[in-house]
Amino acid sequence: MKEKLGLIHIYTGEGKGKTTAAIGLAVRAAGNALKVLFVQFLKGGEESGEIKIFKGLKKNIEVIRFDQRHPIFFKKGDTKKGLINAAKDALKLIDEKIKSDKYDLVILDEINNLIVQGWADVNELMDIIRKRPKGVEIVLTGRGASDELIEMADYVTEMKAIKHPFKKGIKARKGIEY
Amino acid sequence: MKEKLGLIHIYTGEGKGKTTAAIGLAVRAAGNALKVLFVQFLKGGEESGEIKIFKGLKKNIEVIRFDQRHPIFFKKGDTKKGLINAAKDALKLIDEKIKSDKYDLVILDEINNLIVQGWADVNELMDIIRKRPKGVEIVLTGRGASDELIEMADYVTEMKAIKHPFKKGIKARKGIEY
Repeated sequence: MKEKLGLIHIYTGEGKGKTTAAIGLAVRAAGNALKVLFVQFLKGGEESGEIKIFKGLKKNIEVIRFDQRHPIFFKKGDTKKGLINAAKDALKLIDEKIKSDKYDLVILDEINNLIVQGWADVNELMDIIRKRPKGVEIVLTGRGASDELIEMADYVTEMKAIKHPFKKGIKARKGIEY
Repeated sequence: MKEKLGLIHIYTGEGKGKTTAAIGLAVRAAGNALKVLFVQFLKGGEESGEIKIFKGLKKNIEVIRFDQRHPIFFKKGDTKKGLINAAKDALKLIDEKIKSDKYDLVILDEINNLIVQGWADVNELMDIIRKRPKGVEIVLTGRGASDELIEMADYVTEMKAIKHPFKKGIKARKGIEY
């Protein structure tokens, strides 16, 4: 990247395209030889199509998934307190990764939901972002981005659902919606 | 794709993420072994990062670019009439590709702009979409999607720019914005 500005992006809103735009950005950056850290929160069990592709691009894209199967995220018989602690551990790991200065672009997919749910602390997240090495570009996705994050960000896009087929009862399909 | 519904998606609006969401969708679909045709209109000369990645996925993603260098799109000393004819040829080619029934997902990136500019005819495009083989999913991107297309579509997302760094004079950067 010629100009390493290290901007902060947010993709929020109810419409389609938040995670998909983040995936697209990861691919575009990797295609330009940037190093990407793609962190997925709250994803279901099976690996999604994009993760399979990312694995083939592992020279440029590193993936961390915190899903229902991930030991540090969900434990058997988990309580809300357990989830909060797990999210804290997850943020700590991300902080270390970002501080290593190995990445040009760090995507925290669905992080906004963690904050909305009260599982992660917005101030902790903002602190990690503020203290990142110079030039690291940050992308946050998920519905309900908090006001503080919007205030902090450079790029904020609201994906507005003008029409959405789920309202007609169509279910999410593999390869398109997930 | 278990359920081949063949929905029509539109990504429009002034915000970031229209093309990037389409790229993300192409990658997700390819990762699930769907066949993708990714058509880029009006892109600048140099190949973007995503196209480099798509080339590595050529078993599942076929790319057609109509850019300033493409012989059927821009010719030396082109007039508006020349552009309209070139766009007509481009749509004809796309129609044939779609009718071949080799693709599960067809992305027409920036096609909305062609229509807004008056270079392509919305009725011709709608006709191609209506006559597609059953189950082919269509994605249209670009600002200013026309009312007829929005009416026809199943999925419409408006990428709304809540904050955009270009307003602060920051220029587009390779690997992030293109």
